[in-house]
Amino acid sequence: MGEGILVVICDGLGDRPVRALKGASPLEAATRPNMNHFAGKGACGIMDIISPGVRPGSDTAHLAILGFDPYKVYTGRGPFEAMGVGMEVRPGDVAFRCNFSSVNENMEIVDRRAGRIRERTGELARALDDWEFEGVKVFFKEGTEHRGVLLLRAEGLSPLVSDPDPHEEGVRPHECVPKAPEAALTARVVNAFVKRSYEILRDHPVNRDRIKAGQKPANIILPRGAGIMPHLPSIKERFGMSSAALAGVALVKGICRVAGMELLEVKGATGGLDTDMGAKMEAALEALEGHDMVLVNIKAADLAGHDGDFRMKANVVKRIDKALGVLRKGLPRDVHLALTADHSTPCCAKDHTGDPVPLAIFGPNVRPDNVRSFGERSCAQGGLGRLRGMDLLPVLLDLAGRTEKFGA
Amino acid sequence: MGEGILVVICDGLGDRPVRALKGASPLEAATRPNMNHFAGKGACGIMDIISPGVRPGSDTAHLAILGFDPYKVYTGRGPFEAMGVGMEVRPGDVAFRCNFSSVNENMEIVDRRAGRIRERTGELARALDDWEFEGVKVFFKEGTEHRGVLLLRAEGLSPLVSDPDPHEEGVRPHECVPKAPEAALTARVVNAFVKRSYEILRDHPVNRDRIKAGQKPANIILPRGAGIMPHLPSIKERFGMSSAALAGVALVKGICRVAGMELLEVKGATGGLDTDMGAKMEAALEALEGHDMVLVNIKAADLAGHDGDFRMKANVVKRIDKALGVLRKGLPRDVHLALTADHSTPCCAKDHTGDPVPLAIFGPNVRPDNVRSFGERSCAQGGLGRLRGMDLLPVLLDLAGRTEKFGA
Repeated sequence: MGEGILVVICDGLGDRPVRALKGASPLEAATRPNMNHFAGKGACGIMDIISPGVRPGSDTAHLAILGFDPYKVYTGRGPFEAMGVGMEVRPGDVAFRCNFSSVNENMEIVDRRAGRIRERTGELARALDDWEFEGVKVFFKEGTEHRGVLLLRAEGLSPLVSDPDPHEEGVRPHECVPKAPEAALTARVVNAFVKRSYEILRDHPVNRDRIKAGQKPANIILPRGAGIMPHLPSIKERFGMSSAALAGVALVKGICRVAGMELLEVKGATGGLDTDMGAKMEAALEALEGHDMVLVNIKAADLAGHDGDFRMKANVVKRIDKALGVLRKGLPRDVHLALTADHSTPCCAKDHTGDPVPLAIFGPNVRPDNVRSFGERSCAQGGLGRLRGMDLLPVLLDLAGRTEKFGA
Repeated sequence: MGEGILVVICDGLGDRPVRALKGASPLEAATRPNMNHFAGKGACGIMDIISPGVRPGSDTAHLAILGFDPYKVYTGRGPFEAMGVGMEVRPGDVAFRCNFSSVNENMEIVDRRAGRIRERTGELARALDDWEFEGVKVFFKEGTEHRGVLLLRAEGLSPLVSDPDPHEEGVRPHECVPKAPEAALTARVVNAFVKRSYEILRDHPVNRDRIKAGQKPANIILPRGAGIMPHLPSIKERFGMSSAALAGVALVKGICRVAGMELLEVKGATGGLDTDMGAKMEAALEALEGHDMVLVNIKAADLAGHDGDFRMKANVVKRIDKALGVLRKGLPRDVHLALTADHSTPCCAKDHTGDPVPLAIFGPNVRPDNVRSFGERSCAQGGLGRLRGMDLLPVLLDLAGRTEKFGA
């Protein structure tokens, strides 16, 4: 009994009071009968994903929620992004998140996102993929929209290099500088790759067509966020559980793949504001039939938070809640459900913050508390108190009867 | 003022909601005016003995409550069991928990507990005690009922060996296998000891009498749970306090002895369901006259939890509560009392779980909160919030004015 585990992560859900919502957060302001059902019948708390006041990225957040200490395993988002776009990543590989960008003839950046290019980036990426420089194998793959991933493979690489992406426009790409002696080779390869990307892309047919159509050319690649791939034991190795993830966003997919989770695709689940959340919940229920643990990430609330649009965020909550009706109806009795977020993305901050996130755990073995609604402040009154992200999986495993006793 | 400390540990007290008790836990369902008195006048919280979701054994739990990090000092229960049965244990000794068991002429185990032998195990143990093999000194002592302890003393021993006890019947004892090269000697000694135990015990007069009486012979010793004795500084060394423990169970006694606590015996305190709890509380009050800190362990709730008998568990709570009347009447005004558990043993799980335990601290220097009853959920609303087992002693020492300032 109680052996299945379902973790629903509403990306960026946590928020702060909004004056125009009479001091409520977007979550608190939204109609959310299903969230309140799970909170009311379950045990609630708040969770510091990393530790109090630390602003998590979606990558470090998901690492923590999957039981890995991000301070030990995380050097940069590159390798997880690479996993997310489906590249093969081996321990020791160094990878970078990249943008397709536009530079003018003076090599000054005129658009860091190449006119928000969406089409034919695969053709551009293939022109850069599978190269070799000073014995380092170089791979490149497109991501969603203007994004791509650069991956380097050799002995003796290091992620301790600066970003060629200057993170602003009107300037030239920065030189990649080693921050430690052992990163010299890595920096040389990155600089050679950026230079080569311009040489190959500037006259690429895709860009000639873009210029003809009045669009900005995607004529250079700007890498950032170097990281080295750690060796991470899988969820199967650590807990003996089969697991699957439903996530639209490459970065989250990448983390889940690194943790050895099967990535399931859902038709209509885009990782955008238009995602079909109900389909994702139906797919989660189906996935629970063949997996011990299923993780669902719904990105939309985070996007609304980054846009600072609290009305849209409250509306997203309403849509998530409606989708949760699928679980309310169909969740098997022996499954423990955790409903939570990977971080707060308050509309006033338009970015991730370290505010704790609400948490409700629902299922046969919890001790229900007096909390009757799912919100940042109501959950703070709950019986779970204040936990950390890395505690979540142990708590769920214990409720599901899946832990080993420590001692006798 | 406020210098004495009394810690009352209701072993395995924590539980989960029981449907037949209208969703209450056995603790919540029981009449418990004295527990409620201490909770109502004191400060309450919940406690993760190790960390959230981790299932503690009674040994690792008591180590944590006594301020030792079990992840640093605990390798296995053997050495603490040895301390509990009164053996001399030195740092570096490797010890095993053992069963007196019955094998047939094919060396197949027919009863892992030798017909639950209770009498004359001392005679059998003496026949095996004080041996030497390959320079390793070998000691053996009986514990309660079918239990015993094997202790090895030499340079270069290791606890990294497999259990000869196969933990099931109908099979032969397993060979003890080293899990690391440095454990080869230890494994050889253990295998020689198991072989020798059969040779010596099979025709021992005690067993001849048992067979005559139609009882199963205790004709072999099956070791398990190897552990190496760490060096642990005593409570006196760490905190300058004299301390004593009242506990019926060998394992808990062993932990307390390792921590340098004086073990006090109470007439009628058996460690079983029939234990005289009132006598234990009287003895605790007496012990506080001569010791700065006293720990009392009451085992009965854990036994009821392991049996899955929630009515018995609620009844045990009622009996513990009655015994706590002794403290309500006689606790000196300057003593701080902590009422808690070492882990949860929910009746639905019939084993330890990682659910947090309730905690109430009563005494002159606490900040009383609004909690009015002692229960898993009421205490979660308390002013102490959610603590860890290793926090308990520092909190009590601070209330008792016994801590050093860190900094200036």
